[in-house]
Amino acid sequence: MTDDKQIMRKINVDKALRDISNFIEYSLIESNTQGLVMGISGGLDSSTVATISAGVVNPEKILALAMPTSSTPPGDTEGAVELAKDLGIAYKVLDLDPLLTPVENICRGGLDEEHIKLAQANLKARMRMMVLYYHANALNRLVVGTSNRTELMVGYFTKYGDGGADILPLGDLYKTDVCSLAEHLDLPTSILEKKPTAGLWPGQTDEDDLGISYVLLDKILYLLMDKKLNEDDVALKLGISSREVVKVRIMVQQAQHKLKTPPIAQIEI
Amino acid sequence: MTDDKQIMRKINVDKALRDISNFIEYSLIESNTQGLVMGISGGLDSSTVATISAGVVNPEKILALAMPTSSTPPGDTEGAVELAKDLGIAYKVLDLDPLLTPVENICRGGLDEEHIKLAQANLKARMRMMVLYYHANALNRLVVGTSNRTELMVGYFTKYGDGGADILPLGDLYKTDVCSLAEHLDLPTSILEKKPTAGLWPGQTDEDDLGISYVLLDKILYLLMDKKLNEDDVALKLGISSREVVKVRIMVQQAQHKLKTPPIAQIEI
Repeated sequence: MTDDKQIMRKINVDKALRDISNFIEYSLIESNTQGLVMGISGGLDSSTVATISAGVVNPEKILALAMPTSSTPPGDTEGAVELAKDLGIAYKVLDLDPLLTPVENICRGGLDEEHIKLAQANLKARMRMMVLYYHANALNRLVVGTSNRTELMVGYFTKYGDGGADILPLGDLYKTDVCSLAEHLDLPTSILEKKPTAGLWPGQTDEDDLGISYVLLDKILYLLMDKKLNEDDVALKLGISSREVVKVRIMVQQAQHKLKTPPIAQIEI
Repeated sequence: MTDDKQIMRKINVDKALRDISNFIEYSLIESNTQGLVMGISGGLDSSTVATISAGVVNPEKILALAMPTSSTPPGDTEGAVELAKDLGIAYKVLDLDPLLTPVENICRGGLDEEHIKLAQANLKARMRMMVLYYHANALNRLVVGTSNRTELMVGYFTKYGDGGADILPLGDLYKTDVCSLAEHLDLPTSILEKKPTAGLWPGQTDEDDLGISYVLLDKILYLLMDKKLNEDDVALKLGISSREVVKVRIMVQQAQHKLKTPPIAQIEI
């Protein structure tokens, strides 16, 4: 049997916290901006980002926006607001539905109803980005994204939606690393134990969408991308089928366009 | 006196047209998508992109969206629609104002009215991106951006707004190169002679915003960035003050964050 503990990296949470805090401080100075704007969902990633930020930046210089829709799980927004209050940061709750409906009504004409589920889901993520930037532009602040390394690697985010931010404090941490960090930060149990969801449609969970648990996905990504093992060796080490590993490799490949600036037609002069 | 003709590069328009056409074809195959979605404003850049695209891709596979607002100059949308008809591509005219108003109403609370002009302008550009992607997601198509090399270099675009696209066919062409290409493509005089504007507020022109003409800006950028001359040599060669060149260098520096994916906090393991 494989010993799981040796398969995944173990981060030094104290050091990670310091690295992330320094990064946020440096980003503010380097960009000459006046504070931070971030989305809070009541989930693990945004709660972690908000908590770390409140430890580095004057809480008055942080604005947290909860942007629920009709498909937001009950209790999430309350949890997000409670955290913002605990941290002493400013927050607003902005209902997204009245912003989404006019866009859908105007766009839908001539589009096949069967194929708009993806468009609708991405629309929510992009609307949140837009609302965050409206505030950031008006206040001369940075938009803080909450994407983690796992989501970035497999492209589990919306291009120019939740992927659209000025800085990504958690971008180097796997989802399971974020869990360790959140425990270290003593986040409420209700947040630590909640099933991760992008909240883009009712009942959605990340792990259903991805078709794999974060614990296994992180191990595969770590061995494949960081340790540079081939698919068969990863499968052997984890006691799973190669097909499962290949599926992850394909996700990584298909995510590439989301992780780069748009390609430009090169003109030979 | 300096001979202007030697100062700016001269592109081979035939070759540039071929390079861009190949790029669009390749992008469709590589991304396994079914066609293109693009914004058309009646301006030079989007008219050029639409015309080149219609020469490469089956016009049925191209959807052009005109997205006017109350600050769109009169006649622009009519010009855009006329071009779409001439090219035989599908088009929609979607009035953006009813989408913008609810976002502004919901966001404005607590924000300083003095500082929201930038937020409002960027909101329009981001809303256009969002509407384009809604269609692209529903149709499995690529969003074609219209940014040119000049705009990219000096950051004259909205991050995750008009800067948010899947491919940038004109990204390697200076604005003055785009003019040459558009003439070569025989675009209507009304388009060729129109003052460039982002149309983000009434009466806006690019050259007023930038504080410099495109002809001079392109020369400065070319000598500074492509020819790698220092500020004083550029000034001397163009018979202008060094201060003018330094201003452009600063614009280039301040654009850097828009030309990269968001920075990630690096964690030392």
